[in-house]
Amino acid sequence: MESVTSRVLRVLDAFSAEHPDLSLSEIGRRTGLPLATVHRLVGELVTWGALERDGRGRYCVGLRLWEVAALAPRGLGLRDIAMPFLEDLYEATHENVQLAVLDGTDVVYLERISGRNAVPVLTRVGGRWPAHATGVGLVLLAYAPVEAQERYLAGPLAVFTGKTIADPARLRRALAEVRHRGFAVSDGQVTLDALSVAAPIRGSGNDVVAALSIVVRRGTTEPATLAPAVRTAALGISRALRR
Amino acid sequence: MESVTSRVLRVLDAFSAEHPDLSLSEIGRRTGLPLATVHRLVGELVTWGALERDGRGRYCVGLRLWEVAALAPRGLGLRDIAMPFLEDLYEATHENVQLAVLDGTDVVYLERISGRNAVPVLTRVGGRWPAHATGVGLVLLAYAPVEAQERYLAGPLAVFTGKTIADPARLRRALAEVRHRGFAVSDGQVTLDALSVAAPIRGSGNDVVAALSIVVRRGTTEPATLAPAVRTAALGISRALRR
Repeated sequence: MESVTSRVLRVLDAFSAEHPDLSLSEIGRRTGLPLATVHRLVGELVTWGALERDGRGRYCVGLRLWEVAALAPRGLGLRDIAMPFLEDLYEATHENVQLAVLDGTDVVYLERISGRNAVPVLTRVGGRWPAHATGVGLVLLAYAPVEAQERYLAGPLAVFTGKTIADPARLRRALAEVRHRGFAVSDGQVTLDALSVAAPIRGSGNDVVAALSIVVRRGTTEPATLAPAVRTAALGISRALRR
Repeated sequence: MESVTSRVLRVLDAFSAEHPDLSLSEIGRRTGLPLATVHRLVGELVTWGALERDGRGRYCVGLRLWEVAALAPRGLGLRDIAMPFLEDLYEATHENVQLAVLDGTDVVYLERISGRNAVPVLTRVGGRWPAHATGVGLVLLAYAPVEAQERYLAGPLAVFTGKTIADPARLRRALAEVRHRGFAVSDGQVTLDALSVAAPIRGSGNDVVAALSIVVRRGTTEPATLAPAVRTAALGISRALRR
């Protein structure tokens, strides 16, 4: 029999960026749990503050859960240390600045600072993206353990534009080049109008724990111009993490 | 008998800013749950990703919980809309810029941008502080429903410095002044070296849903100089929230 814990977590799983608020019956449909069970679990989650009820009687993720989650070392913890360096990079460029970590085969974005006039990007804080298309993802894959890399290369590689590298052999070469150069370039591989340059952030054990990128409109700047700034900021964060 | 749900939530409650990582036996001690129960619950939470195990075998809050929590409308949702305005205010001043909401009698900080040379502040993202001492808290109390205000004024009012307003009658006058002026000033009321100027952010129903502040070193700038910039940014966020 399924445990109560996994039912509770299934209720949390029902919420997504596309469905940030849900009615009781929607939670029932999305979890497959009986309505009486949903009613009881949601009641307990609301009491604790993991969920909140809005003015229209719909449920959404609550502030208390956000507070607990803020303690995640790979979430806001890393972000807090990185933030001053992201600020500097933003102020020097006024472009999109992004911080991400690898989770399974996806990159998860921890922070994004967007210039008002910067090229639009599809990512959001807390959002996921397949690693091989994005600048930060190429960095994180390039420095991932060999087994994780091989698993990724064996899997289906989604295509987002005509420039996405979806061929395993080409991707393998691209990852080797990232390691050789110390930074990654995603040139129109997520959307055709965006160019991303990303660099690795190393943790206390010197392994790559996160990646930093800058995303600009394609054709406005050369990767070689952006790389030193991104690498400088990434090295600064790495140093701060080792303190 | 206590439900399984509340035990799961008690495990999450065991983590705090002072104790961001815990061993199994520490979780047992902090929750009062039998070790066998802790073992089973933690196992399920790790499988789902609500908790993660670090290299030293200690447990911390996991990235998956952070992802779900990023869906909280009063957490990252509000923060995302506010961020460009916070950026502008930071770039114009290079001081501490803070975004907070009221939760019970506390302010919870959703975002903080800190200048490298700005005055040190005690707050952190995801952290709490009693409302009456801080600039953002004075704003949020001033515009809170009357019953909530009266409850607050009846409770004990903590003293942080000789300048903290801990007398209910004086606090009541201070809140009236905030409503009259449209902004709050906390002058050495949290730490003696910091001055905060805060303004209300209004949501779609025109009620105050959050507050924005700038925190500078006392004696460097007059509140009257800071107020227009803070209010301008707060009005910009309010407008963006109504769209």
